[in-house]
Amino acid sequence: MLAIDPAARLARVRETSPLVHNITNHVAMNSMANVLLAIGASPAMVHAREEAAEFTALAGALTINIGTLSPHWVEAMEASALAAGETGRPWVLDPVAVGATRYRRETGARLLALAPDVIRGNASEIIALAGQAGGGRGVDSTDPAEAARDAAIRLARQTDGVVAVTGEVDLVTDGRRLARLEGGHPLMPRITTLGCALTGVVAAFLAGAEDSFEATVAALACYAVAGELAGEAARGPGSFAVAFLDALYLLDGEALAARARLEVDHAP
Amino acid sequence: MLAIDPAARLARVRETSPLVHNITNHVAMNSMANVLLAIGASPAMVHAREEAAEFTALAGALTINIGTLSPHWVEAMEASALAAGETGRPWVLDPVAVGATRYRRETGARLLALAPDVIRGNASEIIALAGQAGGGRGVDSTDPAEAARDAAIRLARQTDGVVAVTGEVDLVTDGRRLARLEGGHPLMPRITTLGCALTGVVAAFLAGAEDSFEATVAALACYAVAGELAGEAARGPGSFAVAFLDALYLLDGEALAARARLEVDHAP
Amino acid sequence: MLAIDPAARLARVRETSPLVHNITNHVAMNSMANVLLAIGASPAMVHAREEAAEFTALAGALTINIGTLSPHWVEAMEASALAAGETGRPWVLDPVAVGATRYRRETGARLLALAPDVIRGNASEIIALAGQAGGGRGVDSTDPAEAARDAAIRLARQTDGVVAVTGEVDLVTDGRRLARLEGGHPLMPRITTLGCALTGVVAAFLAGAEDSFEATVAALACYAVAGELAGEAARGPGSFAVAFLDALYLLDGEALAARARLEVDHAP
Repeated sequence: MLAIDPAARLARVRETSPLVHNITNHVAMNSMANVLLAIGASPAMVHAREEAAEFTALAGALTINIGTLSPHWVEAMEASALAAGETGRPWVLDPVAVGATRYRRETGARLLALAPDVIRGNASEIIALAGQAGGGRGVDSTDPAEAARDAAIRLARQTDGVVAVTGEVDLVTDGRRLARLEGGHPLMPRITTLGCALTGVVAAFLAGAEDSFEATVAALACYAVAGELAGEAARGPGSFAVAFLDALYLLDGEALAARARLEVDHAP
Repeated sequence: MLAIDPAARLARVRETSPLVHNITNHVAMNSMANVLLAIGASPAMVHAREEAAEFTALAGALTINIGTLSPHWVEAMEASALAAGETGRPWVLDPVAVGATRYRRETGARLLALAPDVIRGNASEIIALAGQAGGGRGVDSTDPAEAARDAAIRLARQTDGVVAVTGEVDLVTDGRRLARLEGGHPLMPRITTLGCALTGVVAAFLAGAEDSFEATVAALACYAVAGELAGEAARGPGSFAVAFLDALYLLDGEALAARARLEVDHAP
Repeated sequence: MLAIDPAARLARVRETSPLVHNITNHVAMNSMANVLLAIGASPAMVHAREEAAEFTALAGALTINIGTLSPHWVEAMEASALAAGETGRPWVLDPVAVGATRYRRETGARLLALAPDVIRGNASEIIALAGQAGGGRGVDSTDPAEAARDAAIRLARQTDGVVAVTGEVDLVTDGRRLARLEGGHPLMPRITTLGCALTGVVAAFLAGAEDSFEATVAALACYAVAGELAGEAARGPGSFAVAFLDALYLLDGEALAARARLEVDHAP
């Protein structure tokens, strides 16, 4: 089994406070910014085509989320993804509900062709992006992460990148390695855009990292442990959301060492 | 008096977890999604004209909220309202501040012509939409719900739909029946977009329901009881918002039976 | 030293509940609305060029925030700023990350030319807007407020308005007077858009006020005391945000008298 140290990578995020440029959906903007601030990163939401690519070059990493699309935004997404490639910034694609409409399928395919360093989605989204049947009816997954294992490995090899499938159990693969993470809390799908915000956390861990796979696994491990801690303090989704931001902010190496449950093996 | 069982209808929402398609304003998107998740529904915010109508056909119900308009969105609103009509999906109109500007009055009139199944607004908005004087200065109502009773009944008969006027006391009418609901909490108008989010809850209760009037009354009863419970745990609007999401999530038949205060009679 | 009474000005906001028209960024809309409601004002977010200027004339004050720009919005911003000038409404400019891209610098310069009554930003933004070097990498300031003192005084004299530089210590100047405020809490920069929301609070205090400088100082004093109170009840940024809204709502003259720390002198 391969060793990944989430605590060391979290400490690095807090020390460097990477600027994360997000072109994300309208629902997620506020909560994603709060999650990034809680973990120690510096978020910025910039989506106008007049400035998006210029801004990408100032940032440590980029995220692109197709949750609420419009033609102007798609232009900005493509320009920023290109700028990220040209300036060596890692970028993460979040293919929200990519299987739901023709517009999403087409936009997803165009962004996929620009080779994201990491793709993070639920099982339905990863399956849809890989071109298989299924795809879910909306933003919620109708499949467990395990069902997307083969699609994830194929996508990772196709993009020469990392694919993270998040759900009750998370899977991460770069086509050669495959990690499984447990943790989190059943209330997490009851709070909107926690998955979108996780995409931002992955980007924060990617900024300046040499191994995208390890950075992604570390980000997911921190998220899962914070979710578990928040769940212990919550009565419902309102108090969970509050406790989760506190838990991300207070997360330390001790809690990670005691609670992170992750296995890394060779991909089949 | 006619009998409506909010608990049975809430149980049905939780069992079926209807996908609610929302074209809502930028202020409300996040909190509306959280309210819908807390009550057990599955929210999606999709407003691009390139995909809105296609998405409506996947959903169990649609909401259209004119809080933050733009020409592209108005096109998407009309296309989705038409798609809802063609595919038999119920839809709810939320005419935010419809009396405030010419653009809102015109957009409100165009959407009204597409015959929403339910209109939910505060008294000033319902009065303005019905073409009477008044209309309030912004998103807050300057009139009690009772002042909009006749406008609501007229609108309901005109659209052959349901009109809900929310305030300290709520009124619901389908032109034949008239319900009055009490409950909630004085802090509710101090938290932004709780009214917008209620429009989503009404849509969740409408999905698959045979009687739109009864579904609307049940949705409002659940909201009022959750508001009352949240108020008992709150020090101010911050803790109220947290406690309200928890209360929606934890709401059960017992609390509804003990606290729901609603009367249904024939409309005058 | 000059005397300013924050409690009297807060009481006035609560009595008159001014309608504050905000053209603000997508990240801030929800939290800004909640902050304005908590302090006792009535917020409205209206940014379509089809209605923005018309709406400005209904409001007591206007805020313009360049956090998430687009060409349509810039048109609305200019139209609303002009309408504010023509109808005697005070308006506040929030030049978010104005130094980061060419588009922001140009938009900032165009809005500056329309003579805002108040400009509120962090040190990096005020320095960038004044045309000096620096400017920060994103929305977070990389300079302390004191570093922007001269830029602030120059900007205030140039616009014949007030400039507020917020940070660990806040500075406010109208070119003749200079106030320094302490307070707040180290967690405040860890919650997104608290600065944007403060711009709204400044506008609420400006509505109907004769002295923009005094109104701005009073708004900042209330914010700083509420932040201090919230910090005492918070474990992290999640619980801080909740406690802060409660503290704004519960803020009273006693807490202000005991805790507000502000000095006003002649500007150098």
